[in-house]
Amino acid sequence: MVVEIVEVGPRDGLQNEAVVVSTDLKIEFVRLLAAAGARRIEVTSFVRPDRVPQLADAEAVLAGLRLPDVTTSALVLNEHGLRRAHAAGVDEVNLVVVASDTFSARNQGTGTAAAMATAGRLAGQAKDAGIRVTLTIGAAFGCPFEGEVDPGRVLDLAAQAHAVDADEVCLADTIGVATPGRVSTLVHAVREVTSLPIRCHFHNTRNSGYANAYAALAGGAVALDASSGGIGGCPFAPRATGNIATEDLAWALHRDGHRTGLDIPALLRATALIERTLGRRTPALLARTDPFPIPKATTQQ
Amino acid sequence: MVVEIVEVGPRDGLQNEAVVVSTDLKIEFVRLLAAAGARRIEVTSFVRPDRVPQLADAEAVLAGLRLPDVTTSALVLNEHGLRRAHAAGVDEVNLVVVASDTFSARNQGTGTAAAMATAGRLAGQAKDAGIRVTLTIGAAFGCPFEGEVDPGRVLDLAAQAHAVDADEVCLADTIGVATPGRVSTLVHAVREVTSLPIRCHFHNTRNSGYANAYAALAGGAVALDASSGGIGGCPFAPRATGNIATEDLAWALHRDGHRTGLDIPALLRATALIERTLGRRTPALLARTDPFPIPKATTQQ
Repeated sequence: MVVEIVEVGPRDGLQNEAVVVSTDLKIEFVRLLAAAGARRIEVTSFVRPDRVPQLADAEAVLAGLRLPDVTTSALVLNEHGLRRAHAAGVDEVNLVVVASDTFSARNQGTGTAAAMATAGRLAGQAKDAGIRVTLTIGAAFGCPFEGEVDPGRVLDLAAQAHAVDADEVCLADTIGVATPGRVSTLVHAVREVTSLPIRCHFHNTRNSGYANAYAALAGGAVALDASSGGIGGCPFAPRATGNIATEDLAWALHRDGHRTGLDIPALLRATALIERTLGRRTPALLARTDPFPIPKATTQQ
Repeated sequence: MVVEIVEVGPRDGLQNEAVVVSTDLKIEFVRLLAAAGARRIEVTSFVRPDRVPQLADAEAVLAGLRLPDVTTSALVLNEHGLRRAHAAGVDEVNLVVVASDTFSARNQGTGTAAAMATAGRLAGQAKDAGIRVTLTIGAAFGCPFEGEVDPGRVLDLAAQAHAVDADEVCLADTIGVATPGRVSTLVHAVREVTSLPIRCHFHNTRNSGYANAYAALAGGAVALDASSGGIGGCPFAPRATGNIATEDLAWALHRDGHRTGLDIPALLRATALIERTLGRRTPALLARTDPFPIPKATTQQ
């Protein structure tokens, strides 16, 4: 099957990094990802620079990109952010509503219901402006402050995403506590309340991320977030760690006959850039080992 | 469902470590694993000490264990090893046949067919001696020297495992190149050629190991190998890295309602011992993050 991998390295990947990455390097990173075949990239957030200083250059990053084949996406939490995103020419806004009140308050200063009301308003404004809208339900599988999250709250938000005319709903395991059985159950349940396409977002905090990705696809999700090198985290979730890595996910999917449009050696070049920039290894594993299958030139020797 | 996790940390986990672990520490490691609920543990190999020096103390390790509730297993490759294992009182021998000729020659000095003939002879002798026999098919999903392995070779070996009256057949992804779709296909195909219980053995070399574990269970495998902390490797496979980690696997399975009989905090104590002993962090992730779900005492504050 065709699997759409949404590259979130430039936004979710970088937002929690202590090393401030220059605008030029961010643009180069996005360009390498596009060259590797990424056709939908979350490039930045339009949020308060004092809250997420790494992404304070959102306008400059967008201005530096000339990628007609790529759908650029940006995270937006309020009207001011949406106006900035619109002015910067993003193709898609990623609206986020966190399913638990405590985490929602820490993430965006208000509880879940009020955040959803805001998202609904923003969705209407974005659609009127010709911007694609995706609604991400954060902490859909667990909250770092409240613990388990009632799936009923997630289903309620998914139904509202449908009602406000979003183009897609995303179930985000912000802190890496989802497991394949739970993913399967929740994706199936969400399909009962909405006909919107379902995207899933997994962190590999406890080594369940890739298994969750497969479970999501088996359950009917059509798109998966992943970050180059598996970089990532959340500034407002304690000890949240990296996303699943684009190259490791694509490698497995390709070996199983799925198509992502991504080129693995080109993805590894993007990861190499980000490792040089951050000055450390990323959690992705493909670059640490030998290619497989072994290139023909080697096996024929 | 009930999932049997076979703990392979003391054998597959340690065999490739440069730090030579003392016999006393190995015994303590096995005891901590048993205390965590492990009921089947591959404790050592009876192979040539010059080839695998880490496990040269196989007899002493067995002699130091008094674990009536635990099935002790040991890897054996020839008659001499089987005699040693029998004298040491192991409950089970793990016979290994590598599915590709080149890797088989490097691993045990002979091609696949000859290795299978030896394994058949050893199986008969072990059964006569009242020792349980499991036959592991190595490199079942790919070879570090030849590349792709014809599934027909694996099926042929699985059928022979059945014919020689082994108690179980194990599909081993020795170098971490299996992916969930391939696992599912191969496990289903093996079930067509044998009614033996199927165990699977995955390395997380390219981040596909946990997804493979779930695919194996969905396909009908009833047991999975895993190592405490995800330690491991193979001395004769270049750049092979760790097994899937017992605690990360058990944590996910438990959250999905499966039962393993393992206690996560107790497993983390075994991993802590091995991390202190090896002087480094292991690839397992659970110990690096917060427990989840959050203990009630915390959420009620």
